[in-house]
Amino acid sequence: MALIVQKYGGTSVANPERIKNLASRVARYKALGHQVVVVVSAMSGETNRLIALAKEIMPDPDPRELDVMVSTGEQVTIGLTAMALMDLGVKARSYTGAQVRIVTDSAFTKARILKIDDERIRADLDAGNVVVVAGFQGVDEHGNITTLGRGGSDTTGVALAAALKADECQIYTDVDGVYTTDPRVVPEARRLKSITFEEMLELASQGSKVLQIRSVEFAGKYQVKLRVLSSFEEEGDGTLITFEEEDNMEQPIISGIAFNRDEAKVTVLGVPDRPGIAYQILGPIADANIDVDIIIQNTGADGTTDFTFTVHKNELNKALGLLRDKQKDIGAREIAGDEKIAKVSIVGVGMRSHVGVASLMFKTLAEEGINIQMISTSEIKIAVVIDEKYMELAVRVLHKAFGLDKA
Amino acid sequence: MALIVQKYGGTSVANPERIKNLASRVARYKALGHQVVVVVSAMSGETNRLIALAKEIMPDPDPRELDVMVSTGEQVTIGLTAMALMDLGVKARSYTGAQVRIVTDSAFTKARILKIDDERIRADLDAGNVVVVAGFQGVDEHGNITTLGRGGSDTTGVALAAALKADECQIYTDVDGVYTTDPRVVPEARRLKSITFEEMLELASQGSKVLQIRSVEFAGKYQVKLRVLSSFEEEGDGTLITFEEEDNMEQPIISGIAFNRDEAKVTVLGVPDRPGIAYQILGPIADANIDVDIIIQNTGADGTTDFTFTVHKNELNKALGLLRDKQKDIGAREIAGDEKIAKVSIVGVGMRSHVGVASLMFKTLAEEGINIQMISTSEIKIAVVIDEKYMELAVRVLHKAFGLDKA
Repeated sequence: MALIVQKYGGTSVANPERIKNLASRVARYKALGHQVVVVVSAMSGETNRLIALAKEIMPDPDPRELDVMVSTGEQVTIGLTAMALMDLGVKARSYTGAQVRIVTDSAFTKARILKIDDERIRADLDAGNVVVVAGFQGVDEHGNITTLGRGGSDTTGVALAAALKADECQIYTDVDGVYTTDPRVVPEARRLKSITFEEMLELASQGSKVLQIRSVEFAGKYQVKLRVLSSFEEEGDGTLITFEEEDNMEQPIISGIAFNRDEAKVTVLGVPDRPGIAYQILGPIADANIDVDIIIQNTGADGTTDFTFTVHKNELNKALGLLRDKQKDIGAREIAGDEKIAKVSIVGVGMRSHVGVASLMFKTLAEEGINIQMISTSEIKIAVVIDEKYMELAVRVLHKAFGLDKA
Repeated sequence: MALIVQKYGGTSVANPERIKNLASRVARYKALGHQVVVVVSAMSGETNRLIALAKEIMPDPDPRELDVMVSTGEQVTIGLTAMALMDLGVKARSYTGAQVRIVTDSAFTKARILKIDDERIRADLDAGNVVVVAGFQGVDEHGNITTLGRGGSDTTGVALAAALKADECQIYTDVDGVYTTDPRVVPEARRLKSITFEEMLELASQGSKVLQIRSVEFAGKYQVKLRVLSSFEEEGDGTLITFEEEDNMEQPIISGIAFNRDEAKVTVLGVPDRPGIAYQILGPIADANIDVDIIIQNTGADGTTDFTFTVHKNELNKALGLLRDKQKDIGAREIAGDEKIAKVSIVGVGMRSHVGVASLMFKTLAEEGINIQMISTSEIKIAVVIDEKYMELAVRVLHKAFGLDKA
């Protein structure tokens, strides 16, 4: 007998039919003798409907009152989900975030969970109930309703699993697990049986959209075993996100390949090579709240240096404008922007103990005539920036070169 | 400076435009220096939409879970209403029933209010806020969300006014007050400036639909001054429901005329006149949960009696069936039903001190050739049952005879 937290997103509760499917799945887990806590999102589209309604009244909605309204989306779903379970003869009780007490700070629309009172849920579970909890919401210490912001229901699921010391937190989505890369780009992509927490974090931050990075971080902090599963398939074990690196000779060197074309490159050419130049360039960018991803500085022989960094495509023009205003102060010869880039990352804990991962990556790309514009590395990741038009090709050849297509 | 509770029904918050109108009205009261608590219903249609959704999942919805869902209707409206006030520069804060704490019993879908914690509302009012409270809902002592059933938002308004010792509880509806009778039947009908609580209670129970009888009873119990107003008109004082009978020579003898054609008549003819016969007839009716309104028994000279009572039209056939099954036991000669009846009631505290009210009523009807089939009286009401086809005529001639058309 295990204690399992199952989280279902908006598409999994989009209509009564799907809620009934969800209830059938929960009933099967219950019949196996498990204790089950279900966390649900609002029915898909409902949160956006409520926000639009609020904006008709107040163009820039008051955050406290917006949370009062928007939190009703999940409140409707918990009632429906509990009823669907009862209709199958399964004892169930629903709770809002405030009823559980999922205590958060008072940062309305983007609150952070401070603590969870698990007493009521434990008593209900011990009495044989399935407990259905509204995702995405909580209550501050003054009794105000709060919401957690983007991906909040995943966070609720992970936080509840941590508070209850659950054996597993299952995240049901519209894909059946985490893949070696996006199957739409590489048909040979395989579902991973398991992946380490660190790898998942790198994949999420490098562009894989299966899990919200915040809930992965939360799972890491509280050592919660996460499993990603499809809510539209009856069978399948999904992908388990673990904390132990399996001591397995045959473990692959890399686990997955992430990619995105959301970034743009800014190059500041011919800057005098003197201390403080990096701050002079990136200071105005940070002041304007523009997030910078990769940063590279190369010193040339002529006493000048080329400085390159990437920002989100949406902020390229803003970044270029800011730098051109300062071009004289910086003493740069030229400031150039390039939107036609893509970032491709290989991720794997195996590369810690294997030399030659980087050189295999670079050799593979070179053989296809793909020029590498930027390189960034971490202990378990190598990311390269290349011409956008080669992105799919790069992903495919790397997938093959690292043997990811073989079970 | 007064403390005013204003209650707005579903049609008054049906869309963003109307919520903005509501906010403008509240802002005007606030600008006059009043403290205002606003109680709102769900947007019209929303409660029914949620109930229908629940029934798709569970044909006979679990009452606890239904309340969790249905209470979201008012929760959306309080957020929108608070935002509409803020958008006008008025400080406002919303509370659900659970947040206020409106404590009820645990009779889900038809809970009764036990007590109201007024501390938070008072603090907010003193800090210059308009407080917006969700009608129709509360929380039981275990923290479960409850709803109050039909007319529940009126009850919330009255209960809050009682708890806060408000100077007035204003009920905004789609009519601009209580009339001497329905203006659709008598064009000369006048809006009453005031009416006593007892009169209002009689009018409500005799068929006037302006206020739910439960909220009138509640107002009576806690001596809350009620005022009925139109939410669609800027001006007008509506009708005040008071507890003091004004010591005024010119006070009319009767205040209003109510009528309905919802009832049907059951006559049990030629019953042996012996003790226990009323119980023998009405026992089976009560056992079947059929509400009986007027009851009349007339003893004839031949040792038999005629027994007549009225029930709702929907229950006539059921009542007749029950009695015909028992006709032999009762020893009745005949059991007859009549759906073509109407009840017309004149109501007024003035009739306490005026003799001749009944005789003026009967004379007026006789002059028009209207036969009276049944009569029922209370201290401030005389109700007659007549042929349905004379109902409008009876109301018009009585309205004139008692001078209700004169200001």
